[in-house]
Amino acid sequence: MSVEETLKPLFKEIETLKPNFIERLKTAVSIPSVSGDESLRPRVFEMADFLKRELTKLGAHDIQLRDLGIQPPPVNDPSLKLPPIVLARYGDDSSKKTVLVYGHYDVQPALKEDGWSTDPFTLKEIDGKLYGRGSTDDKGPVMGWLNAIEAHRQSGVEFPVNLVMCFEGMEESGSLGLEELIQKEAKKYFNGVDAVCISDNYWLGTKKPVLTYGLRGCNYYQIKVQGPGADLHSGVFGGIIHEPMTDLISVMGKLVDSKGKILIPGVSEMVAPVTDKEDEIYEKIEFDVDELNSAAGSDTAIYQDKKQILMHRWRFPSLSLHGIEGAFSGGGAKTVIPAKVTGKFSIRTVPDMDSAKLDKLVFKYIEEQFAKLKSPNTFKVELIHDGNYWISDPFNENFTAAKKATKLVWGVEPDLTREGGSIPITLTFQDELHTSVLLLPMGMGDDGAHSINEKLNTSNYVNGVKTLASYLHYYGAGEK
Amino acid sequence: MSVEETLKPLFKEIETLKPNFIERLKTAVSIPSVSGDESLRPRVFEMADFLKRELTKLGAHDIQLRDLGIQPPPVNDPSLKLPPIVLARYGDDSSKKTVLVYGHYDVQPALKEDGWSTDPFTLKEIDGKLYGRGSTDDKGPVMGWLNAIEAHRQSGVEFPVNLVMCFEGMEESGSLGLEELIQKEAKKYFNGVDAVCISDNYWLGTKKPVLTYGLRGCNYYQIKVQGPGADLHSGVFGGIIHEPMTDLISVMGKLVDSKGKILIPGVSEMVAPVTDKEDEIYEKIEFDVDELNSAAGSDTAIYQDKKQILMHRWRFPSLSLHGIEGAFSGGGAKTVIPAKVTGKFSIRTVPDMDSAKLDKLVFKYIEEQFAKLKSPNTFKVELIHDGNYWISDPFNENFTAAKKATKLVWGVEPDLTREGGSIPITLTFQDELHTSVLLLPMGMGDDGAHSINEKLNTSNYVNGVKTLASYLHYYGAGEK
Repeated sequence: MSVEETLKPLFKEIETLKPNFIERLKTAVSIPSVSGDESLRPRVFEMADFLKRELTKLGAHDIQLRDLGIQPPPVNDPSLKLPPIVLARYGDDSSKKTVLVYGHYDVQPALKEDGWSTDPFTLKEIDGKLYGRGSTDDKGPVMGWLNAIEAHRQSGVEFPVNLVMCFEGMEESGSLGLEELIQKEAKKYFNGVDAVCISDNYWLGTKKPVLTYGLRGCNYYQIKVQGPGADLHSGVFGGIIHEPMTDLISVMGKLVDSKGKILIPGVSEMVAPVTDKEDEIYEKIEFDVDELNSAAGSDTAIYQDKKQILMHRWRFPSLSLHGIEGAFSGGGAKTVIPAKVTGKFSIRTVPDMDSAKLDKLVFKYIEEQFAKLKSPNTFKVELIHDGNYWISDPFNENFTAAKKATKLVWGVEPDLTREGGSIPITLTFQDELHTSVLLLPMGMGDDGAHSINEKLNTSNYVNGVKTLASYLHYYGAGEK
Repeated sequence: MSVEETLKPLFKEIETLKPNFIERLKTAVSIPSVSGDESLRPRVFEMADFLKRELTKLGAHDIQLRDLGIQPPPVNDPSLKLPPIVLARYGDDSSKKTVLVYGHYDVQPALKEDGWSTDPFTLKEIDGKLYGRGSTDDKGPVMGWLNAIEAHRQSGVEFPVNLVMCFEGMEESGSLGLEELIQKEAKKYFNGVDAVCISDNYWLGTKKPVLTYGLRGCNYYQIKVQGPGADLHSGVFGGIIHEPMTDLISVMGKLVDSKGKILIPGVSEMVAPVTDKEDEIYEKIEFDVDELNSAAGSDTAIYQDKKQILMHRWRFPSLSLHGIEGAFSGGGAKTVIPAKVTGKFSIRTVPDMDSAKLDKLVFKYIEEQFAKLKSPNTFKVELIHDGNYWISDPFNENFTAAKKATKLVWGVEPDLTREGGSIPITLTFQDELHTSVLLLPMGMGDDGAHSINEKLNTSNYVNGVKTLASYLHYYGAGEK
């Protein structure tokens, strides 16, 4: 029987199970597993327990919640525990290939006050879109794998591979502990893995599915400036003390220009030059500036040309100023001189930037800029977390199976893309398991990951389950 | 009977009533009447009602809560009501002089998370210090006037003047509506006022009481930069859109240098030159850099010389960067590109700066700086509120009465000082009522107004009541 014939009853079952799938995602979204907020750490653990319960119900075996110990500094609570990595297997047939799937069950912070139209932790379906924090990043795709298992069980279609699942709870906060676990388990829990599939990114736009073969890395820094012992009244102290905000804003203002050019010497010199072959790939991709403007909700693009936009999103570095901790951040007017302020920024990295060398350049430049101010305030610049860029071969067996699956479900050949965001662990899986890693996204370019009103189209959720399942069947049907 | 003889039983009564006075302040502090936070506006109204109840109990008459209508833009809630101005009289004897006392019953924002050691809205006495938001600014002094009335009533000592009270609820947010009310009531409710006394500032240091004859003004501005329709993921959009934070930080970084020098052309040219006579006054004042360092809790003074410090606090302008609304302000790392950010800063103004001319210089300079960025983001700079500087004659009858009162209670001649902070309405009282305005502070230089852990020493609270009462007696004993 052809793969397509095998999949027919499975696809039918997936349609039937749609309400169950939505209910499963709703429960997942209702747990605010924000890894970046220490006060919500117990909810991240709760999310791991939820996964364990679901996996148990679905007949997964060898389910393990791996304790990763205490979170290293900088943290406010020195006894803060890292959330566990959830490991599980489904199927154990030595005649079948083994596919490792990875996802993360933690999410970005979200507050209704940030401007959400609905409560961020209550999944709500409006006009065919499932709104909620984590719907697309990455609870939707993680539930997608669980849904695929359920659909096989209910339809009686044989599961085509041995599935090894690895779900972490710190992806939004630097994937602490995951790299070590992969290194440790490469020849143990992950032994015999033939391919890795990660569903944790997005289509380029909203019209055409994609497979992704490259990612930027991310080095996230903070600059701390401290002066007075406590916040002061600007009437009483303005003009007579060195204000930490003045120093911080001055230094932050020297990192990047209005056109996105990084002003730190030596950074652009590390970037690999664009090859002719690479240039050709970009020509073929379906994309225009209108899609960017539509996704951004504004007409503020730096580049108007398709190739320039995509290259600056995927294969050139960028620097974003995220905000300041400790300064006045409320509405209205407060005449305060903040005593201790921490500026946050990050640099997206690309081939052939060396992460450690970048840190050195960043620290040196910022220290020089601060020294120029001749300020008596105390100053510190530090790396909060980093993750390397990754690049793969999009024409191997793993990608070919995903191309067939996408074509079958969506009726169109996927574009081959890279991504501006980072999934630092992609590279670790590739290097440690010596196998191909495939990025097979479920959501669309306008899903609003990390933003307010994050959503996943209901059709992407359902077709996503079909695509993940089909990929496993095509890959499993290949030569072992 | 001399004034000193008259005051003896009153001082005794003040000591007896000390627990009542602390209880009164405790109730006042428990009401979070933050005028700068729209969501807390009902609590500001609640504070006005509390004052009305207290004044009624104390036998004040003609108590009025003056409705000031709707708060003008910029506001989030266009139907937001301004808190009332509380007017009241105590005593109505045409043979006595009439003193108007002013204070404010609103406070600065405060959150436990800002770093308070105790709950900011629960007055707590620790080691002879009363901790709580508003303890020193300005609920302590406002309660001081009420306490003075109570002490007269309980002791049977005749009240020496007719008291006119004027307490507002918008001082921390630009005193909206107060100026108009004073103009309107100058010949009505405030008719016949002989002198004005305001207790809403602080001693220069912690050792010697002061009387204050000058204040800086304050023009508070915001710079709004908006780009995308919603916050974006820096991985997906970093490097391809003009980021509002980059523009804002760039512009904010061009306002003031690390040594406090304002970089806006034309501002320093408006400042009155230092005269020889003025120079002499500064020589006499008791102060050194250690007091500044101790109050600031750091060794980060721009100037080490007494005269330079005091002049830059009192008679030169300053510019402080307060913070950014809309950017990431939490702990940890969030890879967000904020869509809409609002930078807040203010300029402290001095003779002979013209407020409207200053606005023009500020707007022009910032608009020029933004134009240089050639950014497609939308941009707006606006004044949130302003208040003029004020200067008086410290050798008139009003100041002389206060000097005697201070000497009697504290055993020392007060220093004659100016202030870096602003009480914009001081000037309006002087001009509209054609009378002397005296600033008679209750708190110390290390009280932490506008900061975390704001406090008022218990001894200053109690001696403050004595000083306020003595001042009224000395002033009332003079020729009408």
